[in-house]
Amino acid sequence: MADDKKLTSQQEDFAKWYNEVVLRAELADHSPVRGSMVIRPWGYGIWEHMQSALDAMFKETGHENAYFPLLIPMSFIEREKEHVEGFAPELAVVTQAGGKELEEPYVIRPTSETIIYAMYAKWVQSYRDLPVLMNQWANVVRWEMRTRLFLRTSEFLWQEGHTAHATAEEAEEETRLILGLYRTFMEDWIAMPPMTGLKSESEKFAGAVRSYACEALMKDNKALQAGTSHFLGQNFAKQFELTFQSEDGQEEFAWNTSWGVSTRLIGGLVMTHGDDNGLVIPPRLAPAQVVVIPILRGDDAGPVRDKADEIVSRLKENGVRVRLDARDHLSPGAKFFEWERKGVPFRLEIGPRDLAEGKVALARRLTPEGEKRKAFLPEAQALAELPERLESFQGELLQAAIARREANTVRGVKSLDEMEEAFEDGAGFVFSGWSGDPAVEEAVKERMKATIRLLPDEEFRSDQAPATCVSGAGESVTEAAWARAY
Amino acid sequence: MADDKKLTSQQEDFAKWYNEVVLRAELADHSPVRGSMVIRPWGYGIWEHMQSALDAMFKETGHENAYFPLLIPMSFIEREKEHVEGFAPELAVVTQAGGKELEEPYVIRPTSETIIYAMYAKWVQSYRDLPVLMNQWANVVRWEMRTRLFLRTSEFLWQEGHTAHATAEEAEEETRLILGLYRTFMEDWIAMPPMTGLKSESEKFAGAVRSYACEALMKDNKALQAGTSHFLGQNFAKQFELTFQSEDGQEEFAWNTSWGVSTRLIGGLVMTHGDDNGLVIPPRLAPAQVVVIPILRGDDAGPVRDKADEIVSRLKENGVRVRLDARDHLSPGAKFFEWERKGVPFRLEIGPRDLAEGKVALARRLTPEGEKRKAFLPEAQALAELPERLESFQGELLQAAIARREANTVRGVKSLDEMEEAFEDGAGFVFSGWSGDPAVEEAVKERMKATIRLLPDEEFRSDQAPATCVSGAGESVTEAAWARAY
Repeated sequence: MADDKKLTSQQEDFAKWYNEVVLRAELADHSPVRGSMVIRPWGYGIWEHMQSALDAMFKETGHENAYFPLLIPMSFIEREKEHVEGFAPELAVVTQAGGKELEEPYVIRPTSETIIYAMYAKWVQSYRDLPVLMNQWANVVRWEMRTRLFLRTSEFLWQEGHTAHATAEEAEEETRLILGLYRTFMEDWIAMPPMTGLKSESEKFAGAVRSYACEALMKDNKALQAGTSHFLGQNFAKQFELTFQSEDGQEEFAWNTSWGVSTRLIGGLVMTHGDDNGLVIPPRLAPAQVVVIPILRGDDAGPVRDKADEIVSRLKENGVRVRLDARDHLSPGAKFFEWERKGVPFRLEIGPRDLAEGKVALARRLTPEGEKRKAFLPEAQALAELPERLESFQGELLQAAIARREANTVRGVKSLDEMEEAFEDGAGFVFSGWSGDPAVEEAVKERMKATIRLLPDEEFRSDQAPATCVSGAGESVTEAAWARAY
Repeated sequence: MADDKKLTSQQEDFAKWYNEVVLRAELADHSPVRGSMVIRPWGYGIWEHMQSALDAMFKETGHENAYFPLLIPMSFIEREKEHVEGFAPELAVVTQAGGKELEEPYVIRPTSETIIYAMYAKWVQSYRDLPVLMNQWANVVRWEMRTRLFLRTSEFLWQEGHTAHATAEEAEEETRLILGLYRTFMEDWIAMPPMTGLKSESEKFAGAVRSYACEALMKDNKALQAGTSHFLGQNFAKQFELTFQSEDGQEEFAWNTSWGVSTRLIGGLVMTHGDDNGLVIPPRLAPAQVVVIPILRGDDAGPVRDKADEIVSRLKENGVRVRLDARDHLSPGAKFFEWERKGVPFRLEIGPRDLAEGKVALARRLTPEGEKRKAFLPEAQALAELPERLESFQGELLQAAIARREANTVRGVKSLDEMEEAFEDGAGFVFSGWSGDPAVEEAVKERMKATIRLLPDEEFRSDQAPATCVSGAGESVTEAAWARAY
């Protein structure tokens, strides 16, 4: 049965559009488990490509994968005071196992700093054992009250990196290295260009000294925290006795960092590129980059199907990820509709007339202004050009996303009234001066539901940032980028 | 600090040897969580290569990856009667979450049939939606009383495939396809040749109609169940209303299969190839296939180190996974010792004299009878030949394992006395006739701690299997392969 109902438009109701796209593009589905989703093959395929790209980047920079326990003794999670305060409300607790009540309950990891640094303490003796640079791909559980597919679910998949260093400088360098790596990944693979910078105290990770983040602007102009990298100082090292003998024989505490991105990135991808026809997947992450649809009619069906098979084989040989859609109970139109909704970058059609003329029709999921939707090309040319067309498509998505972010960023805002007006006019990021006073953050949040997403890194700062705080009270000590956020 | 203590020998205490190898080769470590282990980078690296090989095989045969929730409502797990009986004693139960007692507790998945078929029921309407061929890479928890690193842990990593088909024949074919795929993987990658066949009723999966398994013989002549593939019939489809409209318009229940292998395979690898010097990793799965060790002495240290770097680059270009060990606080001997324990297939040494002569020393982790431990080869030859030497090494490991399995298999056993004698003489697999009576299984288990591992597939059956049951009572209806097992 063809699912040919139109999606709610982004204009009409962005949240509803989002949910429909995720469900109807078969990225994910709701499950019978409160707040947990099922990631379906089309969504998991995107995640696999994200994993493989990120994993290569981690390994190139000297990190190794490992795997630590899902369950964490309650007493561990309670050791770092800010950490447990941050996570306590969201914990899922195992109280029975093997048919008995447990003496000490376990929590399902909401994040793994505690158990991981307890292990590092066992492995690290000397400065020679440092740095420790590990990552794990894992599931975590945070019991969320209001959940949304990919963006906020009780269980999600992520990677969490955890490192230990001999000096604060080295740990800080690692924190920044990973932030840069995340940014590169988001730009080059998701075509989702984030701003980067420091979190304010009120928004930092529970247990960190400093948190850095990537914040990307979605099509509804809300910001999405897409990745974080934390400098943990010696907070956890002190609780878990993660010490080492330094080169000059002193017993010292190690310095830690932790960093992660999650399946939330798939939600970011959807809201960065999707349109009223559905998903648009950047070619580098698309489970299928091209769908080949033979137009089968009567007597010519055999040769057309053979040609389609041949094209699929050739494209595979060229390293293109391709699917053949030869289902015979659906019309070509219904297939076009379905693969558009699923966001496949290119569709290649071949019918009896094309076959006779040695041509194929190539349709892009998004058509640049002024270009035709479909190009009829000689078969050999279409096949030869597809890899570079995929790369151009990827590049155009990034450029469009950067342009949209910049067009929706308002700078130099000098008062709360001006800020409110900017948000009411639909601004994305709003830049202002800030005194560093958390009361200003509270006031803005109360009044216009916006928060400081970042104290932006230099390249994102304004040329002429206001010298006074947006509140009117006091000098600005830093520029701040505000936004309504997911 | 160099860890240069000798391992307990296999002869002296195989179980102790195993534990020491796993810990001291840094494959895994005990954790503060009862029965859970930490998989360290060296062990996880092996798992990554296993995953990537298996995953490619699954995909080539039309399977897609997905991800289903970790938590399963208690009422789901209870629906299939045999299933819950089998798993109830091992469940870990979440009773609190988000600061509240849950109305219905969740269990952490011990396996995912119930939640997965509940979802399939939602997705499948028509025969056109079949088959559904999905796999997930996931962690599961089974609260085990007696745990052993990799072999039996409360949490482990695995893949679980779950499929739905329109007919029993198709589902049976899938079950056998996967069994064959597992066997191929174990032979070609782990160099661990299993026997394959059917499980007896008493050993089958809780909820299955029939279970097939791969059973491999470890160096202590105990069998390891290394992979299973289950034909589930319509047992779960009926409980979860997984129905479809058939081609002729009838509402029918689907037919299911499920199948899995786990990190237990790493334990199998250790016990198939390891020796008193430590681990031996088959090249195709080795995180490092070659370790390059520069022998650094005084003035020549610079050029030797440069040459070592160059060799590492060249090997990488040739697709060899290589590590450089240039640590300067350890002697070459200590390094040799460590990499042998970690099971790296080849060690390439380069010292000042070798450099002058244009040679390198190449040492194999295992030396075939009559060959020298180290070969001094011209550098170019060593580099050119390494890929094929790695493949030969892989092949020799498999041949040795097959020969060992055959040498330790006793066939044609006609009585319980004869069987006991075989086991007392140290036999691995003992083949006999069997009447099909579970009382015989009970008696054998009681008397000699052996169980039926398999009703072997045709190619493993004896040419002249006994016509009577090993118990002396009744005719044999099938040949059975017995062993003591992990």
